[in-house]
Amino acid sequence: MKKIVILGSTGSIGTQTLEVIEEQKDDFTAFGIVGGSNIDLLTEQALKYQPEWVGIYDETKYQELKNRLPESINIVAGERGVFELVSHSGYQILVAAISGIAGLKSTIKGIEAGKVIALANKETLVAGGNLILDLVKKHNTYLLPVDSEHSAIFQCLNENRKLKKIILTASGGPFRDYSEAQLQKVTLEDALKHPNWSMGKKITIDSATLANKALEIIEAHYLFDCSYENIDVLIHKESIIHSMVEFVDTSILAQLGYPSMKLPIQFALSYPNSLITNWKSLDLSQIGTLNFSKPKSYFKALSLGIEAGKKGGSYPVVYNGANEKAVEFFLNRKIGFMEISQLIETALNQIPSFKINSFEDIEHIDKTTREFLVRGIR
Amino acid sequence: MKKIVILGSTGSIGTQTLEVIEEQKDDFTAFGIVGGSNIDLLTEQALKYQPEWVGIYDETKYQELKNRLPESINIVAGERGVFELVSHSGYQILVAAISGIAGLKSTIKGIEAGKVIALANKETLVAGGNLILDLVKKHNTYLLPVDSEHSAIFQCLNENRKLKKIILTASGGPFRDYSEAQLQKVTLEDALKHPNWSMGKKITIDSATLANKALEIIEAHYLFDCSYENIDVLIHKESIIHSMVEFVDTSILAQLGYPSMKLPIQFALSYPNSLITNWKSLDLSQIGTLNFSKPKSYFKALSLGIEAGKKGGSYPVVYNGANEKAVEFFLNRKIGFMEISQLIETALNQIPSFKINSFEDIEHIDKTTREFLVRGIR
Repeated sequence: MKKIVILGSTGSIGTQTLEVIEEQKDDFTAFGIVGGSNIDLLTEQALKYQPEWVGIYDETKYQELKNRLPESINIVAGERGVFELVSHSGYQILVAAISGIAGLKSTIKGIEAGKVIALANKETLVAGGNLILDLVKKHNTYLLPVDSEHSAIFQCLNENRKLKKIILTASGGPFRDYSEAQLQKVTLEDALKHPNWSMGKKITIDSATLANKALEIIEAHYLFDCSYENIDVLIHKESIIHSMVEFVDTSILAQLGYPSMKLPIQFALSYPNSLITNWKSLDLSQIGTLNFSKPKSYFKALSLGIEAGKKGGSYPVVYNGANEKAVEFFLNRKIGFMEISQLIETALNQIPSFKINSFEDIEHIDKTTREFLVRGIR
Repeated sequence: MKKIVILGSTGSIGTQTLEVIEEQKDDFTAFGIVGGSNIDLLTEQALKYQPEWVGIYDETKYQELKNRLPESINIVAGERGVFELVSHSGYQILVAAISGIAGLKSTIKGIEAGKVIALANKETLVAGGNLILDLVKKHNTYLLPVDSEHSAIFQCLNENRKLKKIILTASGGPFRDYSEAQLQKVTLEDALKHPNWSMGKKITIDSATLANKALEIIEAHYLFDCSYENIDVLIHKESIIHSMVEFVDTSILAQLGYPSMKLPIQFALSYPNSLITNWKSLDLSQIGTLNFSKPKSYFKALSLGIEAGKKGGSYPVVYNGANEKAVEFFLNRKIGFMEISQLIETALNQIPSFKINSFEDIEHIDKTTREFLVRGIR
């Protein structure tokens, strides 16, 4: 029985992780669940899945949560409380599913506690990069990808076969066939309609700008020790092939399935084995055709992200922070769709480059970037 | 350095195996090459690749071959001579690339000598089935698939992940979109034009009737210990996905590449590693679309073959023998395209079922089947 703690249980990945745990109750159990402030859903989850621990970041909701849950469930609140739970010796796998830079710190605590990290938080590696890899090594543990693309790559890799190239597939989002002129006119409503995946709002916008793919490239670079020159992006609108690897003999392995996060979640939890599910088997004869094309160059968020990754140092942190803030502005209707990449570009050009020596440096640069963006649109 | 003997060096797989050996000369060397009767090509190969041994099945050509080759090359002739070479202790991998039931006996000699078998001869497992698997076990060796579909499956399998289903892809041959009425009228010339693969004549016709796919299903059944119910056929006209496996968690892995036999040949020789090649990397954005559909039910050779496989015993031997003879008739313009499956069906219905206890039984049933077909078309 694998005991699991979920950071971000009330989010999209968190709720699906709980579903997987429920479906595979002979193998998995929820040791702890942690939410941000959505006390209603957190209560519902705690009562349904009966974890030993429940954590909430928002300390002001501690008492209310205590009133709603039976005494048998332990409750922690605030960052310190959450860190205490993450460091608990009673479980093995930490599902790091708090999105954004906010998820970085708690993931670090999990690594320091020697937990296996099922990593759904892209920013951990995008911003943390080599600092995270060093920490993972030091604490003798490992990262398991939960992102569908990285899980696909991870499933295709073979330790005996030298990797030549990673081919990250991208649905291309709702605007993949748009001209540059059409792209100028898209609305928030347009951008929130993802053709294949049902996800959180931030990631849905990232998928429309292709910033998502840039973050995934940086993540893949660190996870699979692959140079940026050897990571390609392929637009594949059906989202059936979740990504591919090419070995040095030109043989390509691909992982396929219907678009669903439950498979990559379950595989991270069951790794290295596969557990039997009653999910529907992929029927390619019903789908009929799979399409592939190159990404269009005017999706600037993609090229900016790759460039930031290649430059390394503080650039990926600035890229990520600027993107997060710009998407927030877009979601609040403060800026237009095309301004997201424009703001990222300005931030990358104008914020001075720093050498990163600690997680405090990352937090500092992230904060600087966000403040820069806030000043920029006033 | 892996030393290799090629049975059938003058055939399509044999010549490509020699090309691979030449390209990877730091890792592979041709210890021996064996041809049937094509003395010109065999001489050319012997002079170019300088193997230690050359064998020729046709004993009448022994002296002529001796006259043409330098004394440094050892020459054997006839079945006994070839078996002597196959049993030689000086090499490790036997490439079994003599097509048809004729390849079975020499492959058996290789297994008995404890060689690793790079298996390009489908009939070994189609006709030999469990007898072959038992022999492989007894001599503590293993079979490595060279067929592109089986190599794909082999590359996708993972010992930690339980197999649910094999999905064999099929180009569908030149007639995949034909109606039953159109199929009645096809000529030998039509049938020999394979859209994607350049192969021998027999296998090109098998690819047009889908008998090839039935033989591959039976082979996959034995190679991967998978029930017939869990082997699907998917028509995929571009021949880019060479086959797939589905694990019990519904995750699918697929192997992709341009249609070429050199990759599966090289992987069998380099297994478990990949060797660097200068072959062109697959570019899916250039191909654009991949298409998938179910095979049409009026390709009777497919369903007859699956049925024969399920019945087991002598049925697959009869199926294979009847198909081989019927294709020979078709290539000699003695029968029409649709009569190939009709003759197979008649043979399966009318030749009594036998229990197979030995390789002599297989030879007997194969001979009986061929005689039955010859009588049938007189």
